[in-house]
Amino acid sequence: MSDDEGDRDEYGANGSNADLESVLATVRERVDPDADERSRLRAVATTLAERAADAATDLAPGADVLQVGSSARETWISGDRDIDVFVRFPPEIDRETLEEYGLEVGHATVPDGHEEYAEHPYVKGEVEGFDVDVVPCFRLESATEIRSAVDRTPFHNRYLVERLDAELAADVRLAKQFLKGIGAYGSDLRTRGFSGYLTELLVVEYGGFVPLLEAAADWHPPVELDPEDHAADVAFDDPLIVIDPTDPERNVAAVCSAENVARLQHYARKFLAAPSVEYFEPREPAPLTEAELREHLADRGTTPVAIRFETPDLVDDQLYPQLEKSLEGIVGGLEDRGFDVLRARTFAAETAVVFAELAVAERPAVERHLGPPVHVRDHAEGFYDAYAGDSDVYGPFVDGDRYVAEREREWTTARAFLESERLFDVGLGAHVETALEDGYDVLVGAETTALLPEFGRQLRAYFEPRP
Amino acid sequence: MSDDEGDRDEYGANGSNADLESVLATVRERVDPDADERSRLRAVATTLAERAADAATDLAPGADVLQVGSSARETWISGDRDIDVFVRFPPEIDRETLEEYGLEVGHATVPDGHEEYAEHPYVKGEVEGFDVDVVPCFRLESATEIRSAVDRTPFHNRYLVERLDAELAADVRLAKQFLKGIGAYGSDLRTRGFSGYLTELLVVEYGGFVPLLEAAADWHPPVELDPEDHAADVAFDDPLIVIDPTDPERNVAAVCSAENVARLQHYARKFLAAPSVEYFEPREPAPLTEAELREHLADRGTTPVAIRFETPDLVDDQLYPQLEKSLEGIVGGLEDRGFDVLRARTFAAETAVVFAELAVAERPAVERHLGPPVHVRDHAEGFYDAYAGDSDVYGPFVDGDRYVAEREREWTTARAFLESERLFDVGLGAHVETALEDGYDVLVGAETTALLPEFGRQLRAYFEPRP
Repeated sequence: MSDDEGDRDEYGANGSNADLESVLATVRERVDPDADERSRLRAVATTLAERAADAATDLAPGADVLQVGSSARETWISGDRDIDVFVRFPPEIDRETLEEYGLEVGHATVPDGHEEYAEHPYVKGEVEGFDVDVVPCFRLESATEIRSAVDRTPFHNRYLVERLDAELAADVRLAKQFLKGIGAYGSDLRTRGFSGYLTELLVVEYGGFVPLLEAAADWHPPVELDPEDHAADVAFDDPLIVIDPTDPERNVAAVCSAENVARLQHYARKFLAAPSVEYFEPREPAPLTEAELREHLADRGTTPVAIRFETPDLVDDQLYPQLEKSLEGIVGGLEDRGFDVLRARTFAAETAVVFAELAVAERPAVERHLGPPVHVRDHAEGFYDAYAGDSDVYGPFVDGDRYVAEREREWTTARAFLESERLFDVGLGAHVETALEDGYDVLVGAETTALLPEFGRQLRAYFEPRP
Repeated sequence: MSDDEGDRDEYGANGSNADLESVLATVRERVDPDADERSRLRAVATTLAERAADAATDLAPGADVLQVGSSARETWISGDRDIDVFVRFPPEIDRETLEEYGLEVGHATVPDGHEEYAEHPYVKGEVEGFDVDVVPCFRLESATEIRSAVDRTPFHNRYLVERLDAELAADVRLAKQFLKGIGAYGSDLRTRGFSGYLTELLVVEYGGFVPLLEAAADWHPPVELDPEDHAADVAFDDPLIVIDPTDPERNVAAVCSAENVARLQHYARKFLAAPSVEYFEPREPAPLTEAELREHLADRGTTPVAIRFETPDLVDDQLYPQLEKSLEGIVGGLEDRGFDVLRARTFAAETAVVFAELAVAERPAVERHLGPPVHVRDHAEGFYDAYAGDSDVYGPFVDGDRYVAEREREWTTARAFLESERLFDVGLGAHVETALEDGYDVLVGAETTALLPEFGRQLRAYFEPRP
């Protein structure tokens, strides 16, 4: 059990309105930017917009500048220091020119900035303590005409600005902090959670933070929200579907995993039953010690195995999907060979790890191979002839209406399988496969203590799941 | 591998007609009764029929006597010494009187006989070296009017007598001996194989022994034969269906298991491909020695477990179904708890044994308990509340869209389960349950050598299945 549970019980089994209001007031204290923070941000943002507009209209007279994102909508959380400046160019210019102009405007706006590459190149840098992105895009009439994802941002911004009053903006801040607290905030492919835009849409749609939690507590996925009643003829296979108000063919929640939807439901219920500020506090567990790891393993009686390799040099949005794919492949490879996996997870830092906790790590020397029904003559005779006379095989014999052969099992230990070439057949992520080709360690049982201290936090989260 | 395989190869991969004829001739030498045996049997049978008829007509003027069974149809195998005498009484007499008369006639026919009890009581005894049954039944117009199973016998006899010439009768002897050789002869509930009547019907239907094998080699169960084209509106859920020529609602092969049907198919193909007399020779393996058992266990790396108890005092037709039911229950009980069973069998002599060879005999201290989807709120909250705060439980936590709890496993070894009271919950045969209540031994691993020498033959058959 984590320590969280004990703290939470102090709030009692059922939350009263007074509890709820008092908890929300405490959280607001923390997440609402004060007047000073807001005026400082506004001042910097105005300066940046002016600089960007000057540079842009010099290059293309039809250009303009938009401040977008949470800083433009007063939905940022106190202490966040991101300012996004979108520079819109007329759609007549070509993409290459757009990129060239965009970088030129970026450097003019953020003199110490550097270039980064997403869908377009853009300039990023620090100005008076704020992290500033200057992103070029096309100015379009409708979000359905977009040429790249960034072209959509101004439409999102306009939609939300029109709907977010000061009260809803404050509730967006609560919702974001709640999602951060429960580990479900962020649409990156490591988290697969709720993006800022999605969070803002949900708060607008349900009319506030608490109404959002009350609704989520009772969701029956798939949940479909269609704020602008597009009623588009597109079928989405996702647990949460929020049709983009600016684009009927897009599910804003496409990246949000079933687990994060379930997590929101779970914590919404717990929070409403017993409000506590702890739900707004991201868990930062102390690293598991070697003694604690050994104790968990002894208590559980399982056999942990780990494949450890040098982390491929990829951005997280490429790395984690590959690690997840590799995890799935390796778990499948183990289970196909009778090494039952109780639970498994992947971690990455300097090294990357596929960690699996086995309920069965060894199998006998023989395995049962069920053949075809004896009456399917061609197949049955083929099976029989393949094994008959093989002194390493028991059978083939008739068992029920089928042939059965008890033959030598290829892998009697999980370690032997993981150390073999067959590991490369399970469906690994491409860069993971390359990394493994360069070498990897297989750790079994107490050898997994070698994962400490690097993965101490991850292992505590693994062995002491948050309630 | 058994030694059989080597011998069989001498006959080559494909049988020629010459091989076949020569093998069949050799077998005929063994199974055909010679003139002397036949005349001796005929003389004794005639004497018995006369004695029975005299006694029966004294009691009921309308009575008569039939000689039935293989001795009446010349389908007995040389050395078999069974003579069945059926005494038919008019249907007007009541059942009680029938039984009384039947016993009286039986004692008059077999002076040293004793009474036995099947559906009716009857007299059994030895006369001049023959085993004689004197069985009373009703003389009915049609087999569909029968009052008990024995009333059907005269109809079966008449049907077969009309169709079996000397050549077919000789082929019936081959077929019976072949089925004995492969262990598939007998409709008792231990064997669940081919009865004599079924064997004779099949030889008649296909026109001989070799045609029967040729047909069986290509059977696609369910196989339905309806010699008298009854086309009855009765659905049978059996792999082999032979509608009784004398009763459209009866499947003569109802007791024949899928495994014995498959066994006939398998050996029919092997015999036709490479004829050999060995298929007509029942396998009588030498008992497995303790050293051999230990070697098999070491080679296979499995963990054998055995439950041994005093054999319930039942006839085989009651005992074996109960043992099979208990075997199925115990295998299910083991597998439900994660103790994977590779193969299992039941044996009986002075003691009875449920023997299971485990691929997994131990499990870790924890097991994964998959809860309901989080969104099924009532069930999900019930699951969560059942485990939350229990310091012996990991979780409950959100895994995918469900709750999962990793809780203490009740049984970490197969032995502990088998020695527990929970063994009685798996669905045991009633008398097996009573026997176990009086006490039983659980043998694990090398302890199973205690099954020797009592079950040496059964264990050889288990570890060295006939190819």
